[in-house]
Amino acid sequence: MAVSTISPRVEEPAKRPPVNSRRQAMAAGCKVAILGFGTVGKAVAQVLCNAPIPGIRLAFVFNRNFERKRVSWVPEDVEWTDDLRQVLASDADVVVELAGGIEPAKEWVEQALLAGKSVVTANKHLMAVHGLELLQLARHTGQRILYGASVAGGVPVLNALEQGLAGDRLVKFAGVLNGTCNYILSNMESHGTPFAAALAKVQKLGFAEADPSDDVNGVDASCKLAILARVGLQADIQPESVYRQSIRGIDPIDFEYAHQLGCTIRQVSMAEIKGKTLRAAVQPMLVPFSSALSRTKDNQNALIVTGEHGGETVFSGRGAGGGPTAVAVVSDLLALAQNSQLTPARPLHSYRVSGNFSLRYLVRVRLRNQSDSISTIKQELSRNGVEIGSVLRKPKRSKGNSDVAVLTKACRPADMVTAIRDMRQLPGVRQAPVYLPILPN
Amino acid sequence: MAVSTISPRVEEPAKRPPVNSRRQAMAAGCKVAILGFGTVGKAVAQVLCNAPIPGIRLAFVFNRNFERKRVSWVPEDVEWTDDLRQVLASDADVVVELAGGIEPAKEWVEQALLAGKSVVTANKHLMAVHGLELLQLARHTGQRILYGASVAGGVPVLNALEQGLAGDRLVKFAGVLNGTCNYILSNMESHGTPFAAALAKVQKLGFAEADPSDDVNGVDASCKLAILARVGLQADIQPESVYRQSIRGIDPIDFEYAHQLGCTIRQVSMAEIKGKTLRAAVQPMLVPFSSALSRTKDNQNALIVTGEHGGETVFSGRGAGGGPTAVAVVSDLLALAQNSQLTPARPLHSYRVSGNFSLRYLVRVRLRNQSDSISTIKQELSRNGVEIGSVLRKPKRSKGNSDVAVLTKACRPADMVTAIRDMRQLPGVRQAPVYLPILPN
Repeated sequence: MAVSTISPRVEEPAKRPPVNSRRQAMAAGCKVAILGFGTVGKAVAQVLCNAPIPGIRLAFVFNRNFERKRVSWVPEDVEWTDDLRQVLASDADVVVELAGGIEPAKEWVEQALLAGKSVVTANKHLMAVHGLELLQLARHTGQRILYGASVAGGVPVLNALEQGLAGDRLVKFAGVLNGTCNYILSNMESHGTPFAAALAKVQKLGFAEADPSDDVNGVDASCKLAILARVGLQADIQPESVYRQSIRGIDPIDFEYAHQLGCTIRQVSMAEIKGKTLRAAVQPMLVPFSSALSRTKDNQNALIVTGEHGGETVFSGRGAGGGPTAVAVVSDLLALAQNSQLTPARPLHSYRVSGNFSLRYLVRVRLRNQSDSISTIKQELSRNGVEIGSVLRKPKRSKGNSDVAVLTKACRPADMVTAIRDMRQLPGVRQAPVYLPILPN
Repeated sequence: MAVSTISPRVEEPAKRPPVNSRRQAMAAGCKVAILGFGTVGKAVAQVLCNAPIPGIRLAFVFNRNFERKRVSWVPEDVEWTDDLRQVLASDADVVVELAGGIEPAKEWVEQALLAGKSVVTANKHLMAVHGLELLQLARHTGQRILYGASVAGGVPVLNALEQGLAGDRLVKFAGVLNGTCNYILSNMESHGTPFAAALAKVQKLGFAEADPSDDVNGVDASCKLAILARVGLQADIQPESVYRQSIRGIDPIDFEYAHQLGCTIRQVSMAEIKGKTLRAAVQPMLVPFSSALSRTKDNQNALIVTGEHGGETVFSGRGAGGGPTAVAVVSDLLALAQNSQLTPARPLHSYRVSGNFSLRYLVRVRLRNQSDSISTIKQELSRNGVEIGSVLRKPKRSKGNSDVAVLTKACRPADMVTAIRDMRQLPGVRQAPVYLPILPN
């Protein structure tokens, strides 16, 4: 992407100190401006103010109507402002963007880079969609953008991909990357709560956005997967090219069927290189209890990274919340304060992106009455090239329902989707059937 | 430690190019010399030669009697030698020390640093015992030592502690850090194999050293724990100050008692800061199935890191073997090739080191005959200030034995050790009782 795509509104601020003198200054102590004083912004400020970190000093807090945000524990020499130009014209070395979303965050990041400031951000949407463009602008201005907090919160996966596992040739990811979905699903599992009630609960607790569709539909996780694919697989993909399925429609009864198969249900993000194709998907899946992904509770995240030489390495921990995200942000600040050197850009490769994993599926169909038989379903699946492996036992709690559940043999998602669509048209079928692929071991 | 403690045998080689010109050269392409062409050395060479890595080139292989080691897949322009002076006088930028042990590895590393070469090493003994001294020498010579492969093989834990989690204040570690012990224990568990047979098996497979005492007694893991404590807790400790218990004496029957308590048995390395004390221990422990440490099979490693802000973060994967260790070594080489900047030394703190964790214990006593009662044992424990919480059920497989097992309330290890010693003296007790603390959740 060319630098010329940058919004024309970006103007160079009046005072732009030369890069070298800024570098020198940073070595003496890195002055930080936080943009956005919400949960994460406050947590970052707490880490920086409670136990001062040598070489890093909070200098600015930028927020609209900052007066209602002001807290007494921030030292008096920290400036509060609602005027971004003041931050841009200041001697702050690093801008920490914690506003989230694409605009105005993108414009702020661009302006900061052009003003000769490095950027630390937790913004997965911004970095997934405009990351390449922003990284190029940073290079062009001699600054850096670090975004360790954008994937898996406090779990340092991006850092591991860029450094600790850099010596391997990575080929595959499988992860639980969205805390909200995980909270909903682990709650449905533990308490038999229906989806809507579990969602309401997580919203009440303040863990979910007012509009949770990006979480539930897999948009949020697909942004994280796109960032992981870029950093770890050197694959240039956009989040919208990732195959996505919503976790809506899952019923507590599905966990009972899953348990029969030695599995739980999680929203899983997968990416895998196969020749010139990058398979990428975010969807609810049956996850075997033997997998580290099955053991994510509440807002935990986990990522399994597979490399050609090192095999499987697993990272897990708190993927969301103020404290863990602040750790990732402050770690990036330390990296900037301690090392001003620009790292070379790794070349990215283009892949055909496909969600075409061949997987076995649990298919649950709710029938209008018990007398409707399994044979119609079998026929509908088979007509679309999907073979049934076995019919599942009716769970105790399901006795009143007229549910039928089967486990299919491995098939392509396109065939499954067509089969489900056709099945939905059958007069005996009461609601859209649920279909959940099984995560291979 | 002062630089003057360095062995007087270290001489500056004839040609020592100035540091700056060497830096310049490294940016153009980092020339690597491997010292030691065993399993790991060969694996590193394979990664470097099979798919060339931009900016890194294998230039030398140093090994005694290198002729019998020579392999055809190493390019012809790589020089094989058994003369270290040739490597030191060459234009190699980085020396990869894979000989292991303290000497001559220490001398080689010192000579390499003095010859203006950076060092990558997988040597936990060397870095645990002489790490501070070597890091100081590196600083003095303007070079770097990276040692990511020295702890947990392919799992990038040191990298995470130094960078991705650097923004947190870490307070605690619990890990499974020795692949050999883990292989023995998970084998005893799965197949009911006695300790000696499980050890023989792992030796036959080539996973254990000819003399496995350092693994079994916890010396190897205590070196790794000392390195972790230094990097992650900024605690200056030596491995010999870590409290250690051997895994010898554990019987397959102990796994059956452990299972009764919802646990398995693993060699666990723990370190924890409590005020001015650093508690550190390597010992066999009962590990609840709910803990990530319980799920380490064969030669897997796992580490749970607890931070004040980020909570628990878990890392796991292949902790030993050529491939995973090579990944760690090559990642360090990439870090050197991409970034020549020296990072500032973090100040270390001195702590009183103690193994005094207050823990509950499983105590199993093998009696001479069934008629000997539990009351004597109870009395012996109680006399030493150890209270019994419950008496365990006799496992089916134990019917023929005259074993008695109890779960104690939390007590100090010193009291437990005294009680066990006293119990051993009792005429009815047939062998040294086994005592295994439970890892707290």
